[in-house]
Amino acid sequence: MSAAACPEPFAAWQSAQLARVEQALHTWVPADAPAGLGEAMRYAVLDGGKRLRPLLVLAAAEAVQSAPGSASDSDTPPTPAPPAAQAEAALRAACAVELIHAYSLVHDDMPCMDNDVLRRGKPTVHVRFGQAQALLAGDALQALAFELLTPEDSAIPAAMQASLCRLLARAAGADGMAGGQAIDLASVGQPLTEPELRAMHRRKTGALLQASVSMGAACAAAPGLAAARAALADYGAALGLAFQVVDDILDVTADSALLGKTAGKDAAADKPTYVSLLGLPASQALAAELCRQAHHALDASGLPRVQHLRALADLVIQREK
Amino acid sequence: MSAAACPEPFAAWQSAQLARVEQALHTWVPADAPAGLGEAMRYAVLDGGKRLRPLLVLAAAEAVQSAPGSASDSDTPPTPAPPAAQAEAALRAACAVELIHAYSLVHDDMPCMDNDVLRRGKPTVHVRFGQAQALLAGDALQALAFELLTPEDSAIPAAMQASLCRLLARAAGADGMAGGQAIDLASVGQPLTEPELRAMHRRKTGALLQASVSMGAACAAAPGLAAARAALADYGAALGLAFQVVDDILDVTADSALLGKTAGKDAAADKPTYVSLLGLPASQALAAELCRQAHHALDASGLPRVQHLRALADLVIQREK
Repeated sequence: MSAAACPEPFAAWQSAQLARVEQALHTWVPADAPAGLGEAMRYAVLDGGKRLRPLLVLAAAEAVQSAPGSASDSDTPPTPAPPAAQAEAALRAACAVELIHAYSLVHDDMPCMDNDVLRRGKPTVHVRFGQAQALLAGDALQALAFELLTPEDSAIPAAMQASLCRLLARAAGADGMAGGQAIDLASVGQPLTEPELRAMHRRKTGALLQASVSMGAACAAAPGLAAARAALADYGAALGLAFQVVDDILDVTADSALLGKTAGKDAAADKPTYVSLLGLPASQALAAELCRQAHHALDASGLPRVQHLRALADLVIQREK
Repeated sequence: MSAAACPEPFAAWQSAQLARVEQALHTWVPADAPAGLGEAMRYAVLDGGKRLRPLLVLAAAEAVQSAPGSASDSDTPPTPAPPAAQAEAALRAACAVELIHAYSLVHDDMPCMDNDVLRRGKPTVHVRFGQAQALLAGDALQALAFELLTPEDSAIPAAMQASLCRLLARAAGADGMAGGQAIDLASVGQPLTEPELRAMHRRKTGALLQASVSMGAACAAAPGLAAARAALADYGAALGLAFQVVDDILDVTADSALLGKTAGKDAAADKPTYVSLLGLPASQALAAELCRQAHHALDASGLPRVQHLRALADLVIQREK
């Protein structure tokens, strides 16, 4: 492919992928769900957010699909998947991860949790549609994520569908995102050590970011990918933690208008953060170190086409909102 | 099998299956999820409820696994599964459906929804653990359901895992349970016609009951099961609606102590019910007619071992709580 010989500029790739994801979400999040539920679901998902997780899925899928032997003419087990099916699997996985992320924001913003009224510069779902509808919209978005991963009569191999469900379910559940949020709730006003804070964030935001990378990496059936997948998992772990460190930094350095949500909220709620624990300069140094680790893992993967994963790591560190 | 020649009494079968389900849930719902989340999840799931949905899964699995050609020595596609893997799939599906049911009760009881303080004779999850933990426990239970269906390195064929996820996700989401609850919310104080009420209940409770039957029926890979599965789907549809009609009847005829929840609640909330729409005698006649339809569908299935599904239909009609 010419794109491999002459790498596509990141901005062009990002823009094209975001358009694909946006269109797919418009198609797959149902407008016609009953009694206003579809409207609340679409409000929660469409036209908002950086779509970092879908981009990670798509970039990781591209990286493994570029590995030698990943094409459909491979005659080695496990089940070969035609390139079109691999591409469809990656797009479905990208959207599924975003649905889980979106549902977690809807529930997290509710009065019994963070009680946030502003998200991405718009009223939060419960402010707009009421708490009951917000609760249901979140629940339905989680179910929809797994529905997207298991299309009937599809060329996506069943083994790939099952793997994607497994990775997403683990990342979303008690040992992942939901568990991290429970620790977060319990830790308000509690002094945490750096390892405890890290353990919380590994679950709360890290698990789903890491799953995004792993799910992308599951969208190819080439043989001999185990080492590359392990390296991508290291990349995902470093990037996931870096994301949270930067989030904590932005909570004190950015303003609400730029963030699109209420800044200074964590400090006001007396939540432990990297900045409260390490101070701002050390937090910035940690973010930079994690970014280096992410790049190093990509070097170690041996995959030929990791430039978009590389750019995404830089994006996480350099973002201003 | 001797059991087929001399049918096992239902009570003995039911008791044995309930013990299996209870033990499996004790094993699979994590005690060690962080910050009290595991405790809330286990409180929501263990030692409570009639386990109707798991019993439907297991009885339907038994019915299709009794079909000629369902054993592992079948050499016809789709992927044959050894009997032990089929049995494990059915047990996992039984627990997964119960987790979805349990999470829906946790969220449904919350103050922003039905605001119920009593469930199965115990304080509801949010009363016991707080609203935030109840919200998270429900979310984590939904994720766990899909995790249970996709065990790694399992003899359960990937195609079976993916089918089970697909059936459960559809039944739980906007076109199923969550959508039905949205209609329910929107319909308080609204006059509904009988078809509208039926459409609501088909989603709200019917979808998950029907999915229980379909998921059980997906736990065998015998050839030529399409007609039998369609008949079981008819059985599930009739039983699902019958369950709700009986629920509406019990809301006016039973007392809170026996129900283990607040009786008369629907009438007090001015929710449309079969009883408010048709009156008590016609509702009772409708329940009986739906039970007959369920039995007829079992006759039409041609499956040799449907006696436990038959008994479960009778149980739904005759229950007193």
